[in-house]
Amino acid sequence: MTKKLSILGSTGSIGENTLLVADNLGEQIDILYLSANRNVERLIDQAQNYHPKAVAIVDEEAGKEVTGALNNQIEVLTGREGLLELAGRDDVDIVMNGLVGSAGMEPTLRSVEAGVDVALSNKESLVMAGSIINEAKQRSGAKIFPVDSEHSAIWQCLAGEDMADVRKIILTGSGGPFRTKNAETFINITPKEALNHPNWDMGNKITIDSATMMNKGLEVIETYWLFGLKADEIDIVVHPQSIIHSMVEFADRSIKAQLGVPDMKIPIQYALTYPRHSAAQWEELDFIKTGQLTFEAPDLEKFPCIKLAYEALRAGGSTPAVLNVANEQAVYNFLDGEIKFTEIPAIIEKACAEHHYIAEPTLEDLLELEIWATNFVNAYN
Amino acid sequence: MTKKLSILGSTGSIGENTLLVADNLGEQIDILYLSANRNVERLIDQAQNYHPKAVAIVDEEAGKEVTGALNNQIEVLTGREGLLELAGRDDVDIVMNGLVGSAGMEPTLRSVEAGVDVALSNKESLVMAGSIINEAKQRSGAKIFPVDSEHSAIWQCLAGEDMADVRKIILTGSGGPFRTKNAETFINITPKEALNHPNWDMGNKITIDSATMMNKGLEVIETYWLFGLKADEIDIVVHPQSIIHSMVEFADRSIKAQLGVPDMKIPIQYALTYPRHSAAQWEELDFIKTGQLTFEAPDLEKFPCIKLAYEALRAGGSTPAVLNVANEQAVYNFLDGEIKFTEIPAIIEKACAEHHYIAEPTLEDLLELEIWATNFVNAYN
Repeated sequence: MTKKLSILGSTGSIGENTLLVADNLGEQIDILYLSANRNVERLIDQAQNYHPKAVAIVDEEAGKEVTGALNNQIEVLTGREGLLELAGRDDVDIVMNGLVGSAGMEPTLRSVEAGVDVALSNKESLVMAGSIINEAKQRSGAKIFPVDSEHSAIWQCLAGEDMADVRKIILTGSGGPFRTKNAETFINITPKEALNHPNWDMGNKITIDSATMMNKGLEVIETYWLFGLKADEIDIVVHPQSIIHSMVEFADRSIKAQLGVPDMKIPIQYALTYPRHSAAQWEELDFIKTGQLTFEAPDLEKFPCIKLAYEALRAGGSTPAVLNVANEQAVYNFLDGEIKFTEIPAIIEKACAEHHYIAEPTLEDLLELEIWATNFVNAYN
Repeated sequence: MTKKLSILGSTGSIGENTLLVADNLGEQIDILYLSANRNVERLIDQAQNYHPKAVAIVDEEAGKEVTGALNNQIEVLTGREGLLELAGRDDVDIVMNGLVGSAGMEPTLRSVEAGVDVALSNKESLVMAGSIINEAKQRSGAKIFPVDSEHSAIWQCLAGEDMADVRKIILTGSGGPFRTKNAETFINITPKEALNHPNWDMGNKITIDSATMMNKGLEVIETYWLFGLKADEIDIVVHPQSIIHSMVEFADRSIKAQLGVPDMKIPIQYALTYPRHSAAQWEELDFIKTGQLTFEAPDLEKFPCIKLAYEALRAGGSTPAVLNVANEQAVYNFLDGEIKFTEIPAIIEKACAEHHYIAEPTLEDLLELEIWATNFVNAYN
């Protein structure tokens, strides 16, 4: 049985890995749509290789170039509107949302509203609009399949289990590149240092989120929306080797873990083949070579972003969305050399505290808050 | 819903832990039968606490004492025949077989033939008579639920999964008390040293099996019968902390593991509450305190029993039964000071090689081979 697939963000890290997974799955997958932000060459390449029905490119100027290169044989949608239209098409079985940041939220909602299942790598969707997306899921019957290695691990551990028996979820995290670095030197961390992740090869935004450990904080909030556990039932354990991708503890103190080499193709493929594990010749975990797995408590003083995320989850309403947008803009400003590494949590905390809290934000509220928080961060000095 | 439970070997390590689990489960469990080998005082105590319908005691002499102490208010069965009769009663929902060694094989078969599910701690049952027991299961519809921590871990990891997707099973083992000991000194190992297991508090027979690592070998054979994997698909990894109890690798290289403190109550309870994990206030695994999990390849030169077990599994037929009985008698002879530690594998190898091989042994064949192998080991010198 062939699954019709749409890939949002096909030229990014998750998108490229999804294409490798599609190569592995062969006949099982038919790629109907691809979308990119502005990587024209790569999108054209992909379109020529995979022959989708349509592609979307957000950059309007680049649109003409894509249309020309594809000789009008493949439909080309452009702009943010083009992306949203593609995301809402219901002639696919599953959408891989590999978009980066808050820009991924609305496309997730469009797919879910169209009744299409979403393989969700864009964690910001649920962090910002978990309540709205879950309501849309209930109306349309669409499902969300996690792609983040941590949430995929939890999902795999929950196969055949009853949520009522779950006592705790243990999110593991590598601790990022600055786990052992002296906190007093954090103020001088450069973008180049922060982009050097020890285990995972990922996009820039998530790599900086790993360095601040906000990534783990966002995952706590995503866990809440995906699996319905409370903040107190979600623990973080630092596990520098990134071999155990996360764990579930049950009421009888039995713990299940999902493990493997740090390779995004495994969770991506599982989201596409669930509930089955399809064969793949990828690298196998060698326990003897690995030798040891270690565990530490996360250092909340050194990585205040974790604390901010838990606080935002407990505050609920619009706070997680503001946390997310403020973080995103702060990360970009850090990458642009405009602010220091240590200012990232400081700005986020301020944005969360000063925003106009809304208990049950609508999509429009969230889009307005997105602009507000972006401006707030950019005005920070 | 109350589950009616029979405990074979109630005064042993598994039996006592099963009673603690029953205490935890309260109304969910009703203990109908208890059996002991010769521990009269403890059996009387248990009978007075749990009010079973009947008890069995294998030691005939002790039977009178038990009958007297219980004032004829509880039926008392005696001798091997009494045990077998109790094992075959079909007015229970599940039998916990916590018997030690090959003596546990026939009771397992009796329960399965009676159509009663068996929570099986007695791994020797399947090692010796896997084919016969599996056929009896198919006829009666009874199921076998593993209780060994390793097989319970595999079973838990397989919840919600398709066996066709399983690529490999990874049995973990502590490596026993002599993992780091120089092999040249093995000849002088005393029973006292061998009984000192680093992680698990178990009966004497299984503790010696851990020291020789025959325990892991028997578990490989048990894995074959429980889950239908071939010898080549069952790996052993030495994991000295005994935190990961075993793992399953799927076709996509995703691995699932079950973890926890080394406490037999967890797998025992899971076998009684499957597919649910019932609440328990037992010790919780603290990853921060645990700190690290390490892995090594098993040393087959140092622990030849592992190799013997794989060879027996590949030889099939009557060989695993002879391996098992020869091991059992050799262990008892070692505990009695009659043979050296290093003679255990030597005797087993000889017994396997010299026995009259039967491709499809019947129960009668196995009982005869049991006598033959016991005599063979006792005659060794």
